[in-house]
Amino acid sequence: MNDLILDIAGSGKVAHHLAKRFVDQGVRVRHIISRRPEELQFFASSIDATSIGYDEIPGDDLPLIIAVSDDAISSVGQSIPRERKVAHTSGTAALDQLSHENSGVFYPLQSFSDSREPTWDDIPLCIEANNIEWEQELIELAEYLSSNVQRIDSDQRKHLHVAAVVVNNFTNHLFHQAEQYLEDHDLTLDLLRPLIQETIAKTGEMSAFEAQTGPALRNDEKTLDSHLILLEEYPELKDIYALISNSIIKSYER
Amino acid sequence: MNDLILDIAGSGKVAHHLAKRFVDQGVRVRHIISRRPEELQFFASSIDATSIGYDEIPGDDLPLIIAVSDDAISSVGQSIPRERKVAHTSGTAALDQLSHENSGVFYPLQSFSDSREPTWDDIPLCIEANNIEWEQELIELAEYLSSNVQRIDSDQRKHLHVAAVVVNNFTNHLFHQAEQYLEDHDLTLDLLRPLIQETIAKTGEMSAFEAQTGPALRNDEKTLDSHLILLEEYPELKDIYALISNSIIKSYER
Repeated sequence: MNDLILDIAGSGKVAHHLAKRFVDQGVRVRHIISRRPEELQFFASSIDATSIGYDEIPGDDLPLIIAVSDDAISSVGQSIPRERKVAHTSGTAALDQLSHENSGVFYPLQSFSDSREPTWDDIPLCIEANNIEWEQELIELAEYLSSNVQRIDSDQRKHLHVAAVVVNNFTNHLFHQAEQYLEDHDLTLDLLRPLIQETIAKTGEMSAFEAQTGPALRNDEKTLDSHLILLEEYPELKDIYALISNSIIKSYER
Repeated sequence: MNDLILDIAGSGKVAHHLAKRFVDQGVRVRHIISRRPEELQFFASSIDATSIGYDEIPGDDLPLIIAVSDDAISSVGQSIPRERKVAHTSGTAALDQLSHENSGVFYPLQSFSDSREPTWDDIPLCIEANNIEWEQELIELAEYLSSNVQRIDSDQRKHLHVAAVVVNNFTNHLFHQAEQYLEDHDLTLDLLRPLIQETIAKTGEMSAFEAQTGPALRNDEKTLDSHLILLEEYPELKDIYALISNSIIKSYER
């Protein structure tokens, strides 16, 4: 069956994690394709694939997942034989970055790390293609990796990416600011972990709007002012504190 | 043993959850004290306590936990017989809001809801007292509720509270903003839950500073600008996006 063999282009975290997961789930990864195939020899052999260069890609019709950086998608696409069915893995690049007869998107909505195994089974795999047959094939491939497969078009994917930056990168930056502030006062973020867990768990059960608590929600000016005074020497965190508190106050005035 | 019987003042979420947990852990709650004891009759009887008013508090030396709102601590304290050993449960009120010979703080660092059972065992219980014997007794009481008992003075507690607002209320507000934005585009926050879980899990393994990813970290102006354009009709989220992105950029320039 064609849909059980594929090639993967790329040498980064997404390419590695995808290749490993495909193999673990019984999909054969035939080639790992990269600019410097000799550097990927070790990884390719560990999953029983061969590592090849962009000039060696076979011109058959097997799927080829392009897991390279956003900037490289278009040029990598141009070096892939026209017969190949291709899909990139980007959260931001549009579908039309690829111009093959069968072009698609195969976007795992997760932040991958070298040091952590992804919990694949619930990772949303956002699928899009320029024709229904290739879309269906991508969906079937995605279902090998995760039980959370979604049809998401390029426009929706853009919106998802904005929201992902807000809940992932911005949340993480708040943690960083809090961590620094706490360490300066001989405290650690560990003390706040149960609270953080509860914050997350709550939004699974009710809307974040309903889950809100705290001084800004109560418009408790005394506490808000005292916090801004404590943050006098933390100008960035102070600005963030003021802006988000005001935004909370406005959200609940309506 | 004296330390296995106590009274609780208050009729809110903290008072309820504390009373239930004490009883579950084998500590007898003798009286629930409130302004309108008749309204608490049902709750008190469910944990085998009696519900009494502030004018009925016995003048013995049993511990009395004051789980009332910050503004009420001082006046409630004044209506409690001087012989009682007291502790309030506030994250913000200083120890000196109470002026009993044995005054303390018994602050569970968690956001409590009516609808959710707290996972008590890891909730930090932040203890402070105006003398070492009462502090020791409070620590022993706290150890009935949680294995995460901490000595935290009033000054540190203020700093903890600022950081708690940042990681809990502000994170929740980011979720709310993202949720609204997604819903306007026929998407749901559920798609981002695995990403949110990963964000949290990562900070348990590395500092939030190391865990950062995303367009602001890479100072990827093209993506940042395209996101700000997408947020044109979301002025509050746009301001938050710009401020936090700039703060991330600055943090990694250093």
